[in-house]
Amino acid sequence: MAATDRLNLTSDILSSSMKRSESSASLTSLDHPYKVTVIGSGNWGTTIAKVVAENTAQNPTLFAPEVNMWVFEEKIEGKNLTEIINTKHQNVKYLPGITLPDNLIANPDLLSACEGADILVFNIPHQFLRRIVSTLKGHVDKKVRAISCLKGFEVDANGVQLLSSYITDELNIACGALSGANLAPEVAKENWSETTVAYHIPEDYRGDGKDVDHRVLKALFHRPYFHVSVIEDVAGISIAGALKNVVALGCGFVEGLGWGNNASAAIQRVGLGEIIKFGQMFFPESRVETYYQESAGVADLITTCSGGRNVKVGKHMAKTGKDAFEAEAELLNGQSAQGIITCKEVHEWLESCDLVSEFPLFDAVYQIVYNNVPMENIPDMIDDLDAFGHH
Amino acid sequence: MAATDRLNLTSDILSSSMKRSESSASLTSLDHPYKVTVIGSGNWGTTIAKVVAENTAQNPTLFAPEVNMWVFEEKIEGKNLTEIINTKHQNVKYLPGITLPDNLIANPDLLSACEGADILVFNIPHQFLRRIVSTLKGHVDKKVRAISCLKGFEVDANGVQLLSSYITDELNIACGALSGANLAPEVAKENWSETTVAYHIPEDYRGDGKDVDHRVLKALFHRPYFHVSVIEDVAGISIAGALKNVVALGCGFVEGLGWGNNASAAIQRVGLGEIIKFGQMFFPESRVETYYQESAGVADLITTCSGGRNVKVGKHMAKTGKDAFEAEAELLNGQSAQGIITCKEVHEWLESCDLVSEFPLFDAVYQIVYNNVPMENIPDMIDDLDAFGHH
Repeated sequence: MAATDRLNLTSDILSSSMKRSESSASLTSLDHPYKVTVIGSGNWGTTIAKVVAENTAQNPTLFAPEVNMWVFEEKIEGKNLTEIINTKHQNVKYLPGITLPDNLIANPDLLSACEGADILVFNIPHQFLRRIVSTLKGHVDKKVRAISCLKGFEVDANGVQLLSSYITDELNIACGALSGANLAPEVAKENWSETTVAYHIPEDYRGDGKDVDHRVLKALFHRPYFHVSVIEDVAGISIAGALKNVVALGCGFVEGLGWGNNASAAIQRVGLGEIIKFGQMFFPESRVETYYQESAGVADLITTCSGGRNVKVGKHMAKTGKDAFEAEAELLNGQSAQGIITCKEVHEWLESCDLVSEFPLFDAVYQIVYNNVPMENIPDMIDDLDAFGHH
Repeated sequence: MAATDRLNLTSDILSSSMKRSESSASLTSLDHPYKVTVIGSGNWGTTIAKVVAENTAQNPTLFAPEVNMWVFEEKIEGKNLTEIINTKHQNVKYLPGITLPDNLIANPDLLSACEGADILVFNIPHQFLRRIVSTLKGHVDKKVRAISCLKGFEVDANGVQLLSSYITDELNIACGALSGANLAPEVAKENWSETTVAYHIPEDYRGDGKDVDHRVLKALFHRPYFHVSVIEDVAGISIAGALKNVVALGCGFVEGLGWGNNASAAIQRVGLGEIIKFGQMFFPESRVETYYQESAGVADLITTCSGGRNVKVGKHMAKTGKDAFEAEAELLNGQSAQGIITCKEVHEWLESCDLVSEFPLFDAVYQIVYNNVPMENIPDMIDDLDAFGHH
């Protein structure tokens, strides 16, 4: 389908769906308002929980106002973090200075936090997902619907798996994704931004007004300062969210070399091309348009490459000659630059398919990080075969 | 055509064309090496002249080594600028600190500079084009080929005209375009960057090895620090080059409001969408892929929105409450922020077609600059109908 046809089609489908959401006429058949739980309470988890709780409070016919947020319990000056959140309405550890809605309830017990939930919003670091999901296994009704705000994917010898698919496979529930140009502190401060929610209506959809659909998700996430676009393409937004971090490392290298804005934009252009190619090769159901039209695509790439951990690590490597792991340790205070792991996982996967040469930028970043290839070689490395296969 | 098919097709066509350029076998039928003249000597004109002269010196079988550069004559401390350039090999006025090749010859006389040229490279401010072209009229053989490095287009009641088409119409010579993420000072310092050259082989093409084609243009502009992609889509790269400045004003507004990186990326995303839509509506021969694949598209948008005159003016307006013309006067020392003029021209054109509402960001920028609409309204203004027609 030509891009313009698709634009018109998308417009028709969604504008009629959005018009419905303006009225509550179709909600009469809802047997109870949707109960929502957010799993995770880092800075992004707490920010999304704030957004969600603001909306549930304003839409009591559609949502149960009270939102549970699962919090990994920690002691802060002798007090439980959950207790501080529930009395002071601030996550003093991960989102200090931001007042949270009264109807957002912190709960340190995962199963109790998720009990009775109709919608689960996953927003935890990637490395905790396996444990969280195994704890939930057997305790989640298959009618429950989920949205994953995680970035990254599972790569093993069998291939590349989306984290939303992992959740679906393990818990037997439909799972979409939320991703966009969303630096958490800016959203928390209610600076205007956009995001993309992707959700594919499942086969066991229970019907209009009885089940989660695009208009319900828009009502759940859209705020005056947080504009939501709802689409079908879960794969597209997930791939873009994971791979942008590899591109950002490359931007860090050329910025650290002092090569300036032209070079950084060139890396982003080639990176966008390789992201699209990766999507088309391994997730043919993903749409090229998602990558250049959606906040989760090109806009998130731009935001990530204009700052953030991966750019910082790449720049520090260029300026000091230190390796990626030294740079990470010096700069990130125990946190990780996701691009370092992702470029390795992607490289291993591409190697197993014998397709490394199709992705010269991803390969260049990998070779610089893991094999000490001089980063000054980037232009030559990506010139043999650029993102789109021409010169 | 699906994007992937087009990628493969482009790859096939160009990789075979590029392979030819590696050998000089097909040059045997050239009756003389191409003589090249660059018209213009601002910082971008001088930078491109440097690039071209380096290449002609290295390819004497393909190009006459000596390159003429037409310079608008000025006195610098009592001396002619052309004389300084030809003796000191520096454009001390517009590109100080950069050594120019010996084979680049400054000439203050337009007709003498262009005499005998096979390839004309236009690189002057937009407002000088009309006069330059009228001087050349009647003095340029129709066998001559041209490349325009200008940004902008001619908008009047009859429609939108590309500057390359204007050159073709007035001088009766084929004209392509060069555009990319190319801040001139960075290219002049030989920091690595990419660019896009677009050229459509004309009907009176004289045959392989006898006329300018994609491989000749690649040989003329590609440098180790300046990577060239050659495509057919003159309209696409010209539209992107002109409209990015309007988007950059919008980025300036939200940055000046302190809304941060998310907001700037959102403006760029919506802007890219409106650029694509504008191209599809008024230049249906332009390709959607050009906008997100080429340096002249998404990469130039990113570079321009990460700094530059238009962002500065927008930011200054937001911070001081001054209008666009005051901001321009205070910041740019007599130079102009192209986006201010372009958003007006585009708005007049869209109004005459009754299509303003299809381009909410372009309209928002216009309303803020010319009608004092508060810039805080941008999110609402572009939410009614976003770039791609959905929410």
